[in-house]
Amino acid sequence: MTDKDTSQQLWTGRFTEATDQFVEAFTASEHFDRRLYRQDIRGSMAHARMLADAGVLTEPERDSILAGLAEIEQEIAQGDFPWSPALEDVHMNIEQRLTDRIGDAGKKLHTGRSRNDQIATDVRLYLREAIDAITAELLRFQRGLVELADREADTIIPGFTHLQVAQPLSFGHHMLAWYEMLVRDQERMEDCQRRLNVMPLGSAALAGTSYPIDRAMTCAELGFDRPSDNSLDSVSDRDFAMEFTAAAAILLTHTSRMAEEMILWTSPMFDFVDLPDRFCTGSSIMPQKKNPDVAEIVRGKTARVNGHLVGLLTLMKSQPLAYNRDNQEDKEPLFDTVDTVLDVLRAFADMVPAMEPKRDNMFAAAKKGFSTATDLADYLVRKGVPFRDAHAIVGAAVRHGVEQGVDLADMDLATLQGFSDAIGEDVYEVLTLEGSLAARDHIGGTAPAQVRTQVRKARERLERDE
Amino acid sequence: MTDKDTSQQLWTGRFTEATDQFVEAFTASEHFDRRLYRQDIRGSMAHARMLADAGVLTEPERDSILAGLAEIEQEIAQGDFPWSPALEDVHMNIEQRLTDRIGDAGKKLHTGRSRNDQIATDVRLYLREAIDAITAELLRFQRGLVELADREADTIIPGFTHLQVAQPLSFGHHMLAWYEMLVRDQERMEDCQRRLNVMPLGSAALAGTSYPIDRAMTCAELGFDRPSDNSLDSVSDRDFAMEFTAAAAILLTHTSRMAEEMILWTSPMFDFVDLPDRFCTGSSIMPQKKNPDVAEIVRGKTARVNGHLVGLLTLMKSQPLAYNRDNQEDKEPLFDTVDTVLDVLRAFADMVPAMEPKRDNMFAAAKKGFSTATDLADYLVRKGVPFRDAHAIVGAAVRHGVEQGVDLADMDLATLQGFSDAIGEDVYEVLTLEGSLAARDHIGGTAPAQVRTQVRKARERLERDE
Amino acid sequence: MTDKDTSQQLWTGRFTEATDQFVEAFTASEHFDRRLYRQDIRGSMAHARMLADAGVLTEPERDSILAGLAEIEQEIAQGDFPWSPALEDVHMNIEQRLTDRIGDAGKKLHTGRSRNDQIATDVRLYLREAIDAITAELLRFQRGLVELADREADTIIPGFTHLQVAQPLSFGHHMLAWYEMLVRDQERMEDCQRRLNVMPLGSAALAGTSYPIDRAMTCAELGFDRPSDNSLDSVSDRDFAMEFTAAAAILLTHTSRMAEEMILWTSPMFDFVDLPDRFCTGSSIMPQKKNPDVAEIVRGKTARVNGHLVGLLTLMKSQPLAYNRDNQEDKEPLFDTVDTVLDVLRAFADMVPAMEPKRDNMFAAAKKGFSTATDLADYLVRKGVPFRDAHAIVGAAVRHGVEQGVDLADMDLATLQGFSDAIGEDVYEVLTLEGSLAARDHIGGTAPAQVRTQVRKARERLERDE
Amino acid sequence: MTDKDTSQQLWTGRFTEATDQFVEAFTASEHFDRRLYRQDIRGSMAHARMLADAGVLTEPERDSILAGLAEIEQEIAQGDFPWSPALEDVHMNIEQRLTDRIGDAGKKLHTGRSRNDQIATDVRLYLREAIDAITAELLRFQRGLVELADREADTIIPGFTHLQVAQPLSFGHHMLAWYEMLVRDQERMEDCQRRLNVMPLGSAALAGTSYPIDRAMTCAELGFDRPSDNSLDSVSDRDFAMEFTAAAAILLTHTSRMAEEMILWTSPMFDFVDLPDRFCTGSSIMPQKKNPDVAEIVRGKTARVNGHLVGLLTLMKSQPLAYNRDNQEDKEPLFDTVDTVLDVLRAFADMVPAMEPKRDNMFAAAKKGFSTATDLADYLVRKGVPFRDAHAIVGAAVRHGVEQGVDLADMDLATLQGFSDAIGEDVYEVLTLEGSLAARDHIGGTAPAQVRTQVRKARERLERDE
Repeated sequence: MTDKDTSQQLWTGRFTEATDQFVEAFTASEHFDRRLYRQDIRGSMAHARMLADAGVLTEPERDSILAGLAEIEQEIAQGDFPWSPALEDVHMNIEQRLTDRIGDAGKKLHTGRSRNDQIATDVRLYLREAIDAITAELLRFQRGLVELADREADTIIPGFTHLQVAQPLSFGHHMLAWYEMLVRDQERMEDCQRRLNVMPLGSAALAGTSYPIDRAMTCAELGFDRPSDNSLDSVSDRDFAMEFTAAAAILLTHTSRMAEEMILWTSPMFDFVDLPDRFCTGSSIMPQKKNPDVAEIVRGKTARVNGHLVGLLTLMKSQPLAYNRDNQEDKEPLFDTVDTVLDVLRAFADMVPAMEPKRDNMFAAAKKGFSTATDLADYLVRKGVPFRDAHAIVGAAVRHGVEQGVDLADMDLATLQGFSDAIGEDVYEVLTLEGSLAARDHIGGTAPAQVRTQVRKARERLERDE
Repeated sequence: MTDKDTSQQLWTGRFTEATDQFVEAFTASEHFDRRLYRQDIRGSMAHARMLADAGVLTEPERDSILAGLAEIEQEIAQGDFPWSPALEDVHMNIEQRLTDRIGDAGKKLHTGRSRNDQIATDVRLYLREAIDAITAELLRFQRGLVELADREADTIIPGFTHLQVAQPLSFGHHMLAWYEMLVRDQERMEDCQRRLNVMPLGSAALAGTSYPIDRAMTCAELGFDRPSDNSLDSVSDRDFAMEFTAAAAILLTHTSRMAEEMILWTSPMFDFVDLPDRFCTGSSIMPQKKNPDVAEIVRGKTARVNGHLVGLLTLMKSQPLAYNRDNQEDKEPLFDTVDTVLDVLRAFADMVPAMEPKRDNMFAAAKKGFSTATDLADYLVRKGVPFRDAHAIVGAAVRHGVEQGVDLADMDLATLQGFSDAIGEDVYEVLTLEGSLAARDHIGGTAPAQVRTQVRKARERLERDE
Repeated sequence: MTDKDTSQQLWTGRFTEATDQFVEAFTASEHFDRRLYRQDIRGSMAHARMLADAGVLTEPERDSILAGLAEIEQEIAQGDFPWSPALEDVHMNIEQRLTDRIGDAGKKLHTGRSRNDQIATDVRLYLREAIDAITAELLRFQRGLVELADREADTIIPGFTHLQVAQPLSFGHHMLAWYEMLVRDQERMEDCQRRLNVMPLGSAALAGTSYPIDRAMTCAELGFDRPSDNSLDSVSDRDFAMEFTAAAAILLTHTSRMAEEMILWTSPMFDFVDLPDRFCTGSSIMPQKKNPDVAEIVRGKTARVNGHLVGLLTLMKSQPLAYNRDNQEDKEPLFDTVDTVLDVLRAFADMVPAMEPKRDNMFAAAKKGFSTATDLADYLVRKGVPFRDAHAIVGAAVRHGVEQGVDLADMDLATLQGFSDAIGEDVYEVLTLEGSLAARDHIGGTAPAQVRTQVRKARERLERDE
Repeated sequence: MTDKDTSQQLWTGRFTEATDQFVEAFTASEHFDRRLYRQDIRGSMAHARMLADAGVLTEPERDSILAGLAEIEQEIAQGDFPWSPALEDVHMNIEQRLTDRIGDAGKKLHTGRSRNDQIATDVRLYLREAIDAITAELLRFQRGLVELADREADTIIPGFTHLQVAQPLSFGHHMLAWYEMLVRDQERMEDCQRRLNVMPLGSAALAGTSYPIDRAMTCAELGFDRPSDNSLDSVSDRDFAMEFTAAAAILLTHTSRMAEEMILWTSPMFDFVDLPDRFCTGSSIMPQKKNPDVAEIVRGKTARVNGHLVGLLTLMKSQPLAYNRDNQEDKEPLFDTVDTVLDVLRAFADMVPAMEPKRDNMFAAAKKGFSTATDLADYLVRKGVPFRDAHAIVGAAVRHGVEQGVDLADMDLATLQGFSDAIGEDVYEVLTLEGSLAARDHIGGTAPAQVRTQVRKARERLERDE
């Protein structure tokens, strides 16, 4: 370590000893925060223009900085940039490179700002864009579900509660339940995006700066809604990371529920849908296997993001204001959450609409679980039996059916009347799956007519959002 | 268990064996969901009125139900209700009691609904009210902070980064940083409340119902914004619980940060503020102790709510639609989160504005940490030295100060000029704490004038929200 | 509350103002830590005996204390104790009551100790006993599984990977897989118990005490392995709570996996096992439902304990030594974790061995998923085909089977030979489920003979542990 | 991507369509599981030797495989290996490369095993080694603390509870409190290592294999304690990952507590210790800053590992047996936890023993917080005052001291006697910090003599462990 060039670090004035090599590696962040280079450069360009307007930089200095930064951006995009962990982070790497290229003007760029407001600005710009990308995938996925729902509005699938057959459902209705989840996810993402679009730049280290900065100017240039109102809060606040990751965790809870259902539906025990081979993989030992790996991995990804959320909440807990170095640990979970959400949405937006329902299997399954028992109870209520008594009568009939291995629709009239003399010939109409489905014809009900109404409503909404 | 009265359970028609006693206790929820009795009764009343309008109940049946429910509500409020775990939950307890009181009409109340949509409706009503209460406490706390900020706009406290003295701050500015956190918390709570205010009632078990229900009518009566669009989603969705708890976890992250600072500030090592005795407790062994227990417990409460958030996310992960009994576990963490948030806000809304700053101690601390070093660097920049070079010059001066035990403001001009000949007599103006503070006079800066501007802005907002 | 009697608190000497009523309630812990009363009294008795031996108490004082504590224990057990939140916690409630009963001798009990070492001692005593109870339930559950495994060693169930049928398994083998999980859980509990059995008493507030205490004496009386070696660590350490809760979270991860399988197996889509009615509940709306609620709630309980673990880790993170009041928040998650683990083990130790396998359904399911494809590949390898080539050959045969809807065992020899001429008449022996099972006859394999060997081994171990 | 070579995947026999490109990338794991290549090759070598002994491979086939694997290991170590995501994972990459190199013998290596038992074996080998490395660092850190404790046994630091000054402590005693934490961490790591050292190899996909494998032979060669007893459990079990990460989370909770204290101690408000410059970094804007970054990052790392623990628990919850693809998500959190623990231990084992206590500052701080008040109470008890009364008397004296700004030791005798006439001339002996310290002379107490005893005990233990 004898030849370590301490002068690389930009803050060594008061130090008498070089940084330990291990410490340098342990504390460096450039290997992950370099991902922010575009945002960092964009922020520096806005800052430089503002400093020139404010008279802190001359116009030639500003132009030199802008040109230098543009070159550096290209250099990084092309993979030619000499990243150095000794320079700690993306900010210092770029600033040092700028000074190497353009000389003293580069040393003036950091006037009136600090890495504390700089990183907060970079991450907000990054996350704002990431949410745009996520919203686009959410919309694509929603569209796929709505089209599938339209195609399968009349397809009957058993609805489960407690994984017991409950009542028949329209498969289209089921797909629209997934759609509803995604609509809420999109709203949460948009709320988060709106809340984060406030500019910290100008907060400097924690107190603001003594230079005559014009925050309205940088704010307009960077597309923020307003400059932040409190410098101390601005450099300490990581709410956006926690809120985004919480919204992502809820989103992935939804996709894990969809994944669970697709794993069940593709199991030979259910055999409700077929997934194209291109979304499946096989086994190294068992030649017959065709595994729903994409759904399983999506289910597993929830774990990752729940973990990141806990990480971020743990990180921020009890930190005194303002910036502490712990905060450096906020970026990896945030970046990985963004990547995970995008990957999962891409995977499902491709795969889910390509599911092929096996209508006969679904129909047969819906028939075998006494799924119209509620309809029989409702029939009795319409004949004047109080609901609780009707429930008990049908319970007895089901017990008989379980013992005899026969469904309600397959009992003869005499048998049914043995449970209640309120039962007449017309009972068989309510015991069919189609009858059960069609009867639930109110807002939000599973009747195919209602499903089509919801499809229309969803399409209108999706067109508005385009 | 010989005398166990199985007939108490309302669903035993198909069963041949009574529930095991331990199982009955293990699966019962009435001991915690009874908290929802007002919401449950309110929902049942709206449902009964709608059923009567739809012709499912006669007017006398409806009136009998409404009167019976009103009496039960009073009975519960007075602590006279015979809660029974054998009746599983709040819904069945109330329904059975109703039938005991009014006879057969009671058995008709459950027509066209299920406990699945009933509980979803109850919890949303409950949480909507809870958020109202939380918002009220948030506003009270915000008001307290704004008034304190106004009083202490000129009070100087050292600002820390890395718990090292960084730059002097207005103590009022610091209080407004806390205020900003709470404003975001309030927004998140309001977003959550808006999103949850959708009515599941009418979704029945999972598919809707075959009765001619009028969801618009119950929706209007219960104050929901709209009935839900998908019955399957309505009974499966617990987003509101996860989103609320996530917002609560962020809120408590904020209060844990405030708590940490107050614990530091009341430590004799800082001695920055005094807390009234009524918010402190002592030691059983050490007679001299006066401990900031309230702040410590608030700091600890974050743990509780982070845990509840993880609990809820873990619970919902990978559940296939629709309702599964696991969901019963959603209520205790949700209720405890509401209680915790309200308690913490009450505690801090009382205590924080009662803090007494020890102005001399704060001022002395701000002086001893070279907190105006940045001002010296900025001074040099204004004299034409590039920022990076200025930073290095001041670093050397600080190193000298550390070695000699002397602050920058206390070095004589010759000494200072030894570091840079750009330094002149006027340097001492920027080295005072007051000068440093006043210089940060832009939106969001710590200058007392800016603090007062923000106080005015906050007061206007708080008046609007009243 | 003008007449609030501040003198109730035992540390008010230095205070000038009474505790705020809300603060008193907010900071009190007696409503949950009273659960520790037996341990607290047991610890106090040991402490009193030691103080008398050390000459700090007279013998009459000691005897008076012991008698008073014994009476108080009975009073609490009978529900007659006047708990007071104003006295903060279980320790102060008992000590004050003692002084009320026996006078000045009561005021001497706290000599040479602090609530900091007292609570640490109480909780360790409590958790040591709790782990004894948990171990007993673990052993009972293990025994039930081993007996079931013995009965069902020859029963064939399809083994799944990715929820696709993989290979046939002995159902007894499956039960022994669950048994293995519980063996590891027991080991972790025992490791935790061993590690926590170290006595903090004598550490006083944080530094030890100036009285001539005899820690070896109290240690022996309270059944600890040794007194702790560092007073500061002793009052700060909550490792036992975190370690126990982590072990509990893993245990509940296991029971959630068992629960998931039982929920699948009782679904009509699988229909592999029947659960006695006494472990199931019904639906308020759907008369046909028989839901595996116990398994679902067990699955949900995992959420609770994962949450508590996060709570405890969050709580302890970054606390400076020694005791901070945050730590009061450690007890509720710990107590609830103990209760949850015990409840879950009781529920499953009762229910799981009462499952009735539906052998025909399991067998039929194992047949329909090409579950002997690996056996065919292995057959080919024995005929000299390299494994990877054999895998590809069988893959082609399965593709043919999927297209034609016919299992491998049902293809005629000519068809099979169309895929590889290495196939001969003897192939049909390896394509039966029984043949597949019996062939896996090595340590840990699923052959019924191996299952019986493992049953014997398990029984020997369980007898040793009795 | 029309020319995608599906044949690369080793399981495509039954498939009719190539894997989607995005799906291939989404499901691939080779970019992170390649880290296991040494363990994978070591396991394959043992497996090949066993297969040859069992007559499944010929000796020339075995030798060819062993030579091929050795070459591949070197190739990977040198960075020359052509990793391919199309080959999914480390296993398939190596196996395919082997076949490319040595031909048909390579295709026979996978006989009698599956990736399911292979990966379980690899990860256990990896984690066993990782724990060895962690234990070595734990021991080094412990040694550093013990030496520091020995040097500083007589140095007085104020002990805090609630961050209020409580009682004086030996700084060496404080360092030994940290040592005790690490001893428990080491034990937990060793328990985990012992429990994981069981061999899954031979479990194949989930049921064992029909080949005449010799698990005792591979077990001996790979250094496992025993082969696993249940194949189904063996491929499903990830307890070791959860248990290790839980132990790591507790370890990092400890280091976060140490970090918090070092951050406090280096703050100018405490100024108790000095950290060498090589462990600190500066500010980009504030030239005077010297930040304890290493401690802050260590504090932040807790967040990361708490998150990983939640991730793993979330992942495993409710997975039906046996292997599901979700499990692929177990490796990144596990690997990152290992790296984090090693980094943190390295950082602190270097830095902590290099702390330089500022003895005068510590001593002065201990004096100013009435830290000998307990000693005064104990003095009164020895004079016959009951402890509770003594506590109240000293409380009144402290209140007087706070009001007058004077410490107990600085009050004259008359003043002290004003609070109790039991006070005599000899009181001043117990009011000195040194006297207070020396009086706590029992096992675990803070008296320097006890600290030295504990240092001796620790050294003996450390020598045994070497």
